[in-house]
Amino acid sequence: MSQQTINEQFGYQAWLAYHPLADEAKREAANYRWIASCEQEETVQAAVSELVRGIGGLRGEAVQVSKEQEPITGKGIRIGTFKGNEEVRLLCGDAVERLSMEGFVIRTVGDITVIGANTSAGVLYGAFHLLRLLALGNAPADSDIVEKPANGLRMINQWDNIDGSIERGYAGQSIFYANNEISYDSERIQDYARLLASTSVNAIAINNVNVHRLETMFLTEAYLPRIAELAAILRRYAIKLYFSINFASPIEVGGLQTADPLDAEVREWWKSRAADIYAAIPDFGGFLVKADSENRPGPFTYGRDHADGANMLAEALAPYGGLVIWRCFVYNCKQDWRDRTTDRARAAYDHFMPLDGAFHPNVLLQIKNGPMDFQVREPVSPLLGAMEHTNQLIEFQITQEYTGQQRHLCYLVPQWRTVLDFQTLAQGAASPVKRIVDGSVYGRELGGFAAVSNIGSDANWTGHPLAQANLYGYGRLAWNPELTAEEIAREWAAQAIGPDEAVIDTVCEMLMASLDIYESYTAPLGVGWMVNPNHHYGPNVDGYEYDRWGTYHFADRDGIGVNRTVQSGTGYAGQYIGENAAIYESLERCPDELLLFFHHVPYTHRLHSGITVVQHIYDTHFDGAERAEGLVRKWQSLTGLVNEELYRLAQARFSEQAAHAKEWRDIINTYFYRKSGIADERGRTIY
Amino acid sequence: MSQQTINEQFGYQAWLAYHPLADEAKREAANYRWIASCEQEETVQAAVSELVRGIGGLRGEAVQVSKEQEPITGKGIRIGTFKGNEEVRLLCGDAVERLSMEGFVIRTVGDITVIGANTSAGVLYGAFHLLRLLALGNAPADSDIVEKPANGLRMINQWDNIDGSIERGYAGQSIFYANNEISYDSERIQDYARLLASTSVNAIAINNVNVHRLETMFLTEAYLPRIAELAAILRRYAIKLYFSINFASPIEVGGLQTADPLDAEVREWWKSRAADIYAAIPDFGGFLVKADSENRPGPFTYGRDHADGANMLAEALAPYGGLVIWRCFVYNCKQDWRDRTTDRARAAYDHFMPLDGAFHPNVLLQIKNGPMDFQVREPVSPLLGAMEHTNQLIEFQITQEYTGQQRHLCYLVPQWRTVLDFQTLAQGAASPVKRIVDGSVYGRELGGFAAVSNIGSDANWTGHPLAQANLYGYGRLAWNPELTAEEIAREWAAQAIGPDEAVIDTVCEMLMASLDIYESYTAPLGVGWMVNPNHHYGPNVDGYEYDRWGTYHFADRDGIGVNRTVQSGTGYAGQYIGENAAIYESLERCPDELLLFFHHVPYTHRLHSGITVVQHIYDTHFDGAERAEGLVRKWQSLTGLVNEELYRLAQARFSEQAAHAKEWRDIINTYFYRKSGIADERGRTIY
Repeated sequence: MSQQTINEQFGYQAWLAYHPLADEAKREAANYRWIASCEQEETVQAAVSELVRGIGGLRGEAVQVSKEQEPITGKGIRIGTFKGNEEVRLLCGDAVERLSMEGFVIRTVGDITVIGANTSAGVLYGAFHLLRLLALGNAPADSDIVEKPANGLRMINQWDNIDGSIERGYAGQSIFYANNEISYDSERIQDYARLLASTSVNAIAINNVNVHRLETMFLTEAYLPRIAELAAILRRYAIKLYFSINFASPIEVGGLQTADPLDAEVREWWKSRAADIYAAIPDFGGFLVKADSENRPGPFTYGRDHADGANMLAEALAPYGGLVIWRCFVYNCKQDWRDRTTDRARAAYDHFMPLDGAFHPNVLLQIKNGPMDFQVREPVSPLLGAMEHTNQLIEFQITQEYTGQQRHLCYLVPQWRTVLDFQTLAQGAASPVKRIVDGSVYGRELGGFAAVSNIGSDANWTGHPLAQANLYGYGRLAWNPELTAEEIAREWAAQAIGPDEAVIDTVCEMLMASLDIYESYTAPLGVGWMVNPNHHYGPNVDGYEYDRWGTYHFADRDGIGVNRTVQSGTGYAGQYIGENAAIYESLERCPDELLLFFHHVPYTHRLHSGITVVQHIYDTHFDGAERAEGLVRKWQSLTGLVNEELYRLAQARFSEQAAHAKEWRDIINTYFYRKSGIADERGRTIY
Repeated sequence: MSQQTINEQFGYQAWLAYHPLADEAKREAANYRWIASCEQEETVQAAVSELVRGIGGLRGEAVQVSKEQEPITGKGIRIGTFKGNEEVRLLCGDAVERLSMEGFVIRTVGDITVIGANTSAGVLYGAFHLLRLLALGNAPADSDIVEKPANGLRMINQWDNIDGSIERGYAGQSIFYANNEISYDSERIQDYARLLASTSVNAIAINNVNVHRLETMFLTEAYLPRIAELAAILRRYAIKLYFSINFASPIEVGGLQTADPLDAEVREWWKSRAADIYAAIPDFGGFLVKADSENRPGPFTYGRDHADGANMLAEALAPYGGLVIWRCFVYNCKQDWRDRTTDRARAAYDHFMPLDGAFHPNVLLQIKNGPMDFQVREPVSPLLGAMEHTNQLIEFQITQEYTGQQRHLCYLVPQWRTVLDFQTLAQGAASPVKRIVDGSVYGRELGGFAAVSNIGSDANWTGHPLAQANLYGYGRLAWNPELTAEEIAREWAAQAIGPDEAVIDTVCEMLMASLDIYESYTAPLGVGWMVNPNHHYGPNVDGYEYDRWGTYHFADRDGIGVNRTVQSGTGYAGQYIGENAAIYESLERCPDELLLFFHHVPYTHRLHSGITVVQHIYDTHFDGAERAEGLVRKWQSLTGLVNEELYRLAQARFSEQAAHAKEWRDIINTYFYRKSGIADERGRTIY
C-alpha cells in the first residue's frame, strides 16, 4: 500500500482526525477566521499548520493565516513565544511568570484567543491543547488556561529492529526500518511525530534496547547522516531523538580489546563518539541502555558496577547536555527453577539500591512499573521511591506484550493510574509514585516517563483500532498524571472516532471495563505469567514454570503462589517502605489482587471477598469470558454508527478475543480443577 | 567447508570407512589380488569400484581389476550378472535358480570368490555384503551364501526443503538443496547413495512430504532436467528416485479450476505430467503423497475419498511402472482438547480400513509404525495387518524427532524390531508385522519399508556420530528383518569405528541400552508427548495437553492416562485383532509399557512389576538420568581408543544428554509429585 493510500484509511489520522463538529454551539466555538503568528521558527510554524488543519477540519471551513501585525478582523488566534512575539506576551499577562519551559497559556480576550509559551515546544503543546478542547467542545468562552507538564522527560521507546521487525510489535512492521536499512516515509514519520507531540511526548529512542549487529553501528558515519535526517523531522515537533547503544561498542565498533568502563581508552572512545554524534545532531537526546540483562553485555563483564557503566557514558554526553537512560531490568535470566531462594522480583532493587547517589546528574534510571515484566497485575516496583539521590524514570509498556497483543482489548491507563497513585511512603503519604518520578519528592531535576510504543506500519498504527487509546493515554498521563482514565478515554474516543455522544459512551464503557475483563480470564490474583513461552500469547499455565526466567507459580495439588515474605519466603516484601512492607508481608492484609504474588496459599484459602482462591479462579474466568463475549455484542450495537472500516477491523478482533477468552477460561479452570480436585460450587462445565 | 575437506573428516565415510584390518587372519581373508568383471553396465562397475576401494582399504594394498577372461593368478573375485557373465553363472551353480531379482550369491571355490546375481543391483548388494563380511572378519573360507531381500521396497524419505532446510533435520542443512534451488555436490550425493545402497535402500523420495510452493513445481520443465541428473547419480547405485507431490498441483501448476480426482481434465493433466517426467527420467519411481493431513490439500476437498485420490495418480503412473506411495497419516489436526470422544489414534484405521481393496495395484499405503507419531513408545498401528487387499509399507522415523534429536543417543533398531515382531494375528500367529509388510501374509506383490532420513550436511552425516547406526540399521532390517539389533550394532560399530573388539563391545553396550534409557527419563508408560510444542525437544508435561493435535495424557490429581478401551473409552483397543484387542482392553493384561496409552489409572495403580504408577515414574526417571550420566563415563573409558574427532563430538553430545536427562527427570517427577502429592518411597529429591 502506498503512503497516500494508507493516509486515506480510517484510523490513520487517529486522534488528530479533526472530524467536523456536528453540534452548532461547538462549531461556533471553533469558528476562528484567522491565525496570526510572526515567528518563522519551525516548531511555531508546525503549531500554526496544525491549527490550520485542525480548525479547518472541525469547523468545515478554511482558516486564514496572517503573518502581519494586523490580521483579518473577527474571531482569531494569536500564537507565539513570549520572546518572539511581543503581542502574545502582553496578552498573556501575569500567566507568563508562572510558566515552565514547556508550559503554555491559552487565554481568550474578546474575539482573540492567544496561545503563548516560553518555548516553541510550549507553543506547539498549546496549539494541540486548544484543538483538543475544540474537538471535545470544551473550549470555555473566557478561558484562562495555564498548563505545564508534570514530568520533564516524556519518552517513547521504539523496539524496532533494522531488519524491519519490531520486538513485541503487533501492528505490522517498523515505520523506521526495512531490509537492514534505515528506511522510512518522511510523511509517515512526521505524522507519528504529530501524534506523539499532540499528547506531549518529547523524546524517542528509535531502536530496540536489544541492540543487534547493524544497530550497534548507529553511532558511526555509516548511519549518522540518515539518523540526523530523522532527528530533523522529529525536531519540528519538539521531540528529541535518542538511540539504544550496545555496551560492547568499543569492541564491536571501535576494535578495542575491552569495553571496561574504567579503561581510559574506552572512555576516550565514547567521548569521540559523542563528539561525532553531536556534530551530526546538535540536539541529540542521549543513549538508552540495556546492560547486563538477558544476555546483553554490560559492566559486570569487567567486574564493574552499573554506576561505573552509566557514568562513563554520562561523562561523554555531559558536555552536550545529553542524557543516559539506564534500564534497571537486570536479573538472572538463567535461574534454576529448582532454586526457590533466588527471586527475580528482588533483582532491580538488589542491584541498584546500593548504588543510590553514585550516578552522575545526567543519568536517569529507567525502572519498569513492576518488579517482573509488564504483567497485567504486579505490585509497584519497590525501587520507585527507594532511591533518594538518583533520577528515576518509570517505564510502562504500551505495546500489549502480556496483555492481549492488540488482538484483545486492554486499555492500560487504569493500570498506570494505579501505579502512579501508589503511595511509596518514601516521605510519608505525600509520596505517590507520580511524585517520585516527576522528581518532586526528592527535588530531582530530571525524571519522567518512558514507555514501549505500540505502533507499526498498520494503517491505523496499532492493529486493534482501540489500542490507539493506550498510546494517547500514555502521553496525556505523562503531561498530567491527575487525568482520570475515563477522562482520557473520552478524549481519545471523541477525537478519534467522532463526536456522537452515544458512541463515545459505549466505547468508553468498553475501554474502561477491558483491563478488568482481561485480568479476569488470564493469570489469577497477581501471580502472572501462565502464557505460552517466547511469543507470550495465549494460556499455558506451566509455560514458564520449569524455565530459567525466574517466573513461577508453584501450584501443586494443595495450593499456589510465591512466598515472598520476609518471615518465611524470599524477603521481597521487605523491600517496601514501612506499612507497605507490613501489608504485603501479612497474609491477612495483603490485597486479594496481589495475594499470590506474595503468598503461597491453599486453594481453600478465603479471600477478603469471602470466597476461596479456587472458587475465585473459577468465578473470574467464567465471568471474564462472558464479559469478553459481551464486548462483541456491545460493539455490534455500534453497527452503522461508526466508520465501516473501523467497525469491521474491531469486530474481527473482538470475535477473536471472545473465542480466545473461552480458551483461557477452560484451560485455566481445567488446570486448577485437575490439580485441586475441587468442583465449581456452581456446577459449571470444567473439563 | 569444501567437499574435499568434509570428506576428510572422520565419520564422513561412515560404515564404508574400510579401516585397515589389524588381525592377521582377517587380513588374510581379505587378501584378494584381482577382480574380474566383463560387464560395462554402470551398477556392476559401481560394485567393482567399491570392491577395489574396500579391499584396498581393508588389506592395505591395492587390488587389480581385470576385464579379460583370464585374470591374474592367485586369490580373486569374479563378479557379474548371470546374463552378462557366463563364467559367473556357471560358478554359482544351482543357487542361480533360487534367486529373486535383487538377491545375490557369494560362493568361494578354491582361490576364487564369485559374486553373482540376476540383476546388477543384486551384484552391487553382493559386493557390499562381501565387503561387510571381510570388514567384520566373518568371511567363511568356503562360503556359499545366498541372500535375497525380504522386502521389495526399501525406501528413504528426505524431508528436505528447497530452501536448504530439513523438516525435523538435526544434522545440518540439506545436501540436495540450497537457496531455493536444487543445489548439490555430486560427490556428496554419490557418497550418500553408496551408504544407502550398502544397506540395501533402493528408493528415495527427494523432498519433504509437506510440499511447498517451489517444490510443487518439481514436475515441470523448470526442475525436471536437474532432477534427472540427480536420478542418474542414484541409478548407478540401484536407487530409484521419487518425489513428493502436492495434491493441488493441477490448480497451482496447471492453472485448472479444480484438483478433483474424478475430474477428467485433472486426470488428463496428471497423465501429461507423468509423460513429461518419464521422458526425463525413464526409471522414475513414483510419487509420495501426504494428502488431507495437517493442512495439506487432498481429495476430501472435493468430497472424494483417498482411494479416488491415489488411484488417479496410479492411473497416470501405471503405464511406466511407477508407484504411488500414499501416506495414512491422516487425522483431525484441529481437534478440541475438551472433546474426549475423538481419538487421533483411531484415525488411520478409521479412514483407510473401509477402503481396503479399492486401491489400484501400483498403490502402496505408507503406514506409520504406531497410531500417533513416532513417540518413543506406542503400540503398533492396528492398520498393519488389517487390510487384506491393499499393499502396505511401514513407515519408521530414523531422524530422532521425538527421541532426542541426535543430541541424545537413541538407537532405534530395538524399537523397530519390536514393531516388526509384533503378532498382528491377521492370519494367526504367523502374521507378524514383518510378514505383513513384506507382502507374504496376504500374498501382496508390493510392500516394504519407508523411513525418514536422519542425515544432513554435517561432515559425519548424522550430527551425533553414533546416530549413523540408525540409518545403517534401517537399511539392514529392510533387507533382513531377522537380524537382531545387537548384530546390527556390532556390524555398524566394527565398520564405522574400527576393529578393536573392546571398543565395539562398549559402543554396542551403549547403543543397546540407549532406547531404554531415553524412554526411562521421558514420557512414562506409553503415554507419549510431554515435549515442548513445535520443535519437540525437551520436557513439557502439559506441552500438548490443551492443544489441538489430539495428544493428551489427562493427568489430574488422582491419575493419568487415556481410556481407549471399547467398554468405556474411545474404542481404539477394538481396532486390534482378536486376542490383541482383548489384551489391550484389559487393565489386568495390558503390558505395563503401554498402560497409559490404553487406560486411565490412579497413580496408586500397581503395575505387573508390583510398584505403583507414580513410584514407577519416580524410579525410572531417577534411574534414567543416572544411566544417561553413565553413558558419559562409558564413553570416557574410550579416551585414546577411538578417533579423536569422533571422541570429542560424541563426548559433547553425551554431556548434553546427561544434563538434559536431569532436566527431564526433575520436571517430570516434580510435575507428578505436585499433582499426586505422593512422596517418593525412597526419599529422593523432588522439587
